[in-house]
Amino acid sequence: MRPSGRSHDALRPVSLTPGFSRHAEGSCLIRMGNTEVLCAASVEGRVPPFMRNSGQGWVTAEYGMLPRATHTRGEREAARGKQSGRTQEIQRLIGRALRAVVDRSKMGEVTVTLDCDVLNADGGTRCAAITGAWVALSLAFRHMQRMNVIKTLPLIGQVAAVSCGISAGDAVLDLDYAEDSSADADANFVLTDAGGIVEIQGTAERSAFSEAQFLGMLGLARQGVAALFEAQREAVGGA
Amino acid sequence: MRPSGRSHDALRPVSLTPGFSRHAEGSCLIRMGNTEVLCAASVEGRVPPFMRNSGQGWVTAEYGMLPRATHTRGEREAARGKQSGRTQEIQRLIGRALRAVVDRSKMGEVTVTLDCDVLNADGGTRCAAITGAWVALSLAFRHMQRMNVIKTLPLIGQVAAVSCGISAGDAVLDLDYAEDSSADADANFVLTDAGGIVEIQGTAERSAFSEAQFLGMLGLARQGVAALFEAQREAVGGA
Amino acid sequence: MRPSGRSHDALRPVSLTPGFSRHAEGSCLIRMGNTEVLCAASVEGRVPPFMRNSGQGWVTAEYGMLPRATHTRGEREAARGKQSGRTQEIQRLIGRALRAVVDRSKMGEVTVTLDCDVLNADGGTRCAAITGAWVALSLAFRHMQRMNVIKTLPLIGQVAAVSCGISAGDAVLDLDYAEDSSADADANFVLTDAGGIVEIQGTAERSAFSEAQFLGMLGLARQGVAALFEAQREAVGGA
Amino acid sequence: MRPSGRSHDALRPVSLTPGFSRHAEGSCLIRMGNTEVLCAASVEGRVPPFMRNSGQGWVTAEYGMLPRATHTRGEREAARGKQSGRTQEIQRLIGRALRAVVDRSKMGEVTVTLDCDVLNADGGTRCAAITGAWVALSLAFRHMQRMNVIKTLPLIGQVAAVSCGISAGDAVLDLDYAEDSSADADANFVLTDAGGIVEIQGTAERSAFSEAQFLGMLGLARQGVAALFEAQREAVGGA
Amino acid sequence: MRPSGRSHDALRPVSLTPGFSRHAEGSCLIRMGNTEVLCAASVEGRVPPFMRNSGQGWVTAEYGMLPRATHTRGEREAARGKQSGRTQEIQRLIGRALRAVVDRSKMGEVTVTLDCDVLNADGGTRCAAITGAWVALSLAFRHMQRMNVIKTLPLIGQVAAVSCGISAGDAVLDLDYAEDSSADADANFVLTDAGGIVEIQGTAERSAFSEAQFLGMLGLARQGVAALFEAQREAVGGA
Amino acid sequence: MRPSGRSHDALRPVSLTPGFSRHAEGSCLIRMGNTEVLCAASVEGRVPPFMRNSGQGWVTAEYGMLPRATHTRGEREAARGKQSGRTQEIQRLIGRALRAVVDRSKMGEVTVTLDCDVLNADGGTRCAAITGAWVALSLAFRHMQRMNVIKTLPLIGQVAAVSCGISAGDAVLDLDYAEDSSADADANFVLTDAGGIVEIQGTAERSAFSEAQFLGMLGLARQGVAALFEAQREAVGGA
Repeated sequence: MRPSGRSHDALRPVSLTPGFSRHAEGSCLIRMGNTEVLCAASVEGRVPPFMRNSGQGWVTAEYGMLPRATHTRGEREAARGKQSGRTQEIQRLIGRALRAVVDRSKMGEVTVTLDCDVLNADGGTRCAAITGAWVALSLAFRHMQRMNVIKTLPLIGQVAAVSCGISAGDAVLDLDYAEDSSADADANFVLTDAGGIVEIQGTAERSAFSEAQFLGMLGLARQGVAALFEAQREAVGGA
Repeated sequence: MRPSGRSHDALRPVSLTPGFSRHAEGSCLIRMGNTEVLCAASVEGRVPPFMRNSGQGWVTAEYGMLPRATHTRGEREAARGKQSGRTQEIQRLIGRALRAVVDRSKMGEVTVTLDCDVLNADGGTRCAAITGAWVALSLAFRHMQRMNVIKTLPLIGQVAAVSCGISAGDAVLDLDYAEDSSADADANFVLTDAGGIVEIQGTAERSAFSEAQFLGMLGLARQGVAALFEAQREAVGGA
Repeated sequence: MRPSGRSHDALRPVSLTPGFSRHAEGSCLIRMGNTEVLCAASVEGRVPPFMRNSGQGWVTAEYGMLPRATHTRGEREAARGKQSGRTQEIQRLIGRALRAVVDRSKMGEVTVTLDCDVLNADGGTRCAAITGAWVALSLAFRHMQRMNVIKTLPLIGQVAAVSCGISAGDAVLDLDYAEDSSADADANFVLTDAGGIVEIQGTAERSAFSEAQFLGMLGLARQGVAALFEAQREAVGGA
Repeated sequence: MRPSGRSHDALRPVSLTPGFSRHAEGSCLIRMGNTEVLCAASVEGRVPPFMRNSGQGWVTAEYGMLPRATHTRGEREAARGKQSGRTQEIQRLIGRALRAVVDRSKMGEVTVTLDCDVLNADGGTRCAAITGAWVALSLAFRHMQRMNVIKTLPLIGQVAAVSCGISAGDAVLDLDYAEDSSADADANFVLTDAGGIVEIQGTAERSAFSEAQFLGMLGLARQGVAALFEAQREAVGGA
Repeated sequence: MRPSGRSHDALRPVSLTPGFSRHAEGSCLIRMGNTEVLCAASVEGRVPPFMRNSGQGWVTAEYGMLPRATHTRGEREAARGKQSGRTQEIQRLIGRALRAVVDRSKMGEVTVTLDCDVLNADGGTRCAAITGAWVALSLAFRHMQRMNVIKTLPLIGQVAAVSCGISAGDAVLDLDYAEDSSADADANFVLTDAGGIVEIQGTAERSAFSEAQFLGMLGLARQGVAALFEAQREAVGGA
Repeated sequence: MRPSGRSHDALRPVSLTPGFSRHAEGSCLIRMGNTEVLCAASVEGRVPPFMRNSGQGWVTAEYGMLPRATHTRGEREAARGKQSGRTQEIQRLIGRALRAVVDRSKMGEVTVTLDCDVLNADGGTRCAAITGAWVALSLAFRHMQRMNVIKTLPLIGQVAAVSCGISAGDAVLDLDYAEDSSADADANFVLTDAGGIVEIQGTAERSAFSEAQFLGMLGLARQGVAALFEAQREAVGGA
């Protein structure tokens, strides 16, 4: 039995609220159980130096956690004067995940920055951020289309992410904080609606895992993201 | 006529939602019109070095703004590696305001940190932060009381804040961003429910103002905070 | 009786020495009792990015304190790698105060930076900095006039500042460090020679203060700055 | 045909030179083709705060690249004042990988830091660092044993890493820089000599990959690390 | 003929004003021509970690330059967030120079920090700082003696410094800024009143110099410091 | 007898290996006894702002030490977020030394950066860095010549460096770490093959030294660099 009472293949309740940030070109507040991440897409009319005059746009992400999103207060990164290695790792991951489903040659030379800020944390914040950021990004592209900045949506498909773990030898879907802390291994899967794998990050927390266990997690992840893709489509349609 | 259509002495709609941060000992999401600030109080069992062995507690604040809380995206302070002068000024103000209504000799040697994070900004964020932080702090003290850490609430009274401005020569209450940008002068008033002045910050933005204008703003502020005190009491009672 | 033996409405002895910095376009060493601040105005032929092509100039300030200007040695901010919140708050105040009496459309696209460095501190350093910086700025403008860079002085008037406090229930003028440490409240007033208010910063240090007490302080401040305006005129005339 | 002329399942020539750092308790210079990483293990008699009084030791890693290890000179991180996100990601990975094969309850309360510095870079530096760091760590543990600090080697097994990629649709082993830049996807595999998976990081660089492609890469990786385990054993035996 | 009209072996006018910093245990404002450096000695009852329980004291220095001490305004190091390499080089030199004439076993476990801040710069600031810091240090030791913290002065002798240069092939004493900028080589000599050499820093600015030229500079330096030692003794005696 | 058994005028075994960095335009691994420094020259087609449009090139250096180059592990400067004063002092010295033998008017507007990274430290790392950097720089200039970027080598001569010390009253050549730690004084000499002095840094570590002792050290240094010039010529010839 999982601590939350969920079955091994059950996602937490998911909700995607578009438009939470009043000023952003696109935004989405994603809730997966008690994890809440605010994703805001900002469109700016310039690209980083290494992309200039390429005719292509850029998509990047920044990640943060409010100091008291967690059980005990964490130090504010702005006060500490630097972002942790974990923060940088996560924001690089989010950026890569989103770029995998964007045709950047159709964006024009603009940058879309996805700010993903965790308001409440209960495990799986990086996955929630990716899933929510896709909605924010889609809404921002639609905004650009309405403003006649672009003619067609530069999206190749949908991307969403979910974590799985090995708990008591078996694979389980969508870990919350309690499970994440006690799992033997966990993995984050970033997948597309076309069935492709964009990113896999699997880590043995307590002991090395086997190929079979890994494939068990991958199977659950495929099942989990199907529901997330559906929720994304509803959120974008209802914006 | 004010840009928002409000009369010169009208506050924006105010709402105070306690408990938004699931993990914090006390928290409050305050909305004043389109300004939204999440205030979370964290209790930690140690005090800064200069307070050690004083038998007193400490109350402090940190302030932040999500990058896309504003019309155009602002740089993330954690990424930039330092907090702006404005941020530091505001968090020092919030801390002083709260300490003015706390009897720190009755807290025990604990620190309460008020994290005030702006989710959406439309003027008056520092004032909203003070008003909301008082609710978060009160709830945290009640939590400490329930846990038997303290016997009586170490609160001397309520504190709330509101901004006023001089617009076209006249004093107006509770500026939103559009008014704030065009006002000739503005002032932030931090007041107690006993009628005392805790802090006044008045600044001539365009031209110096007169004593009469200043007193006009102070009068409106007194009127405005009365409604905020009422809202605070409801929020705390309903927690 | 005040610790210094002064009456409640007496300034400390004031002296303004122009030209202390040999290389600056304008400079002034201001002494108010045992507080000494060196103010140097530097003219540079460029403006910050947000002012470019505006046809206007910029006036800004930086503030510092020598490590041993104080009773016990303070850490050197350059060694610590960042300026404190207090330093940033003060230098922002000085800049705003000076800009309030400058017609920046008549400066040309130049920046004047006022460096205000405290050599000895005995309370009231930010007020002394503002009063002395006005002299340094005036001398720099005169220098620009002599060099035929500008035709008329872009000064609208004089600005000076003084602190007041509530001590044993009564308002007193121009606090030194001993009084500042024990006052119930204190306020800094930045005023123009035309009687306008440029900035008010009032803070309850021990207990909230009343409107009557606040007006008592404002009255003393008006009286105090009259003498400072006179001293400024002499310093500029005698340069 | 691969740019290097290697077959799809061929590693680059590997050499492991123990003892390159004269002062370190254990060290190894690893060469994989034109990639050279110097790995040095330092034993220090204290653990980080979160491990104190746990009776367990700690193993951590730091990673760096000499500015001219690469085709064009990179900025020196020490001069820039911070480590890049990539650097932090890699050093966190190395630390996790090594900890997976250490029984930290048998180390005593000491910290072993693995410094992995890239002298020449031609792709695969993080994998080379893990493989070389295991040798440095083993030698440091043997040194501790000789010094009678520990009785038995606190090693559970061997760990090594190799990258694979998808190039023209097919899986290839051990990418060099030229291949890495043009691969459709790549993945780093950290594996144990007992056949377990410690970490998987797979990333679609150009387009999402399939499960079959992923399993193709995993199969090559298993084959590749077998040779690395053999080389590690020789290096440690010959120290 | 030198730009200043001085003969090749003439120092600039020197004055040493003790007691400029009101709060410091010892202080001295040194003027060498148009160069002015404020040296303040602070005594604190603790030593750096590496000196703890050694029974010895520590003497160290920090150096700074007011932004407008120079012809054109320099960036404020506190604002820039770090001290330049030049600043660090100079403050390390001052510390070493002073420690060379202190018997630290007689100081007790206290630290004396010499803050040397350049108010006006016209060449030779590091040498002036050393000469002035010796006076500040001596006065601080006398203060400690009067307070009965130490019985005897822990000074072994006097130390002073002067620069020399090679100008048009010949050695000249005590360069001002104009000469320093055009010299072929320059050297700083830190010497004791007993005739010993504490530190020599000779640098070819334009072309390498010969041993004979070097010895010419050393001879002038010996002559120059004799006058500085005399001035130091007067300053200390008259404090 | 010296700890190493060398006679007072004996250098440690020297070897200069060109080409260690595969990507650099010029590089050299220098070994002096157990001290090993990797020097890499990078040519970039731009100059710092203060040199733009001067028609001249720039030569600069950066210095670093691997954390475990030393007996006990030193903190990684990149992790600490800043370079130490010692590091900055040394890299400034290396840059000045190299510029003394370059005719920068013949380089074109390019920058050559010499990265000097200490792989193993046993005293004399800054001197070894200078000697090795000259080889790296020469090879980079030859590379530019082969690429037809420059017609003639912009080198005026050779530069090399060696340290000397006063041990038991007598001058000794080329200190290793053990001697350096116990010497009464030490000095670094940067000399040209034409017999000129480029830089002298002499420091009394324990007690002031005399002119005679200083000249004794200079004599040994002259003798020592003769062998280094010979080794440099061989290394460059054999590249």
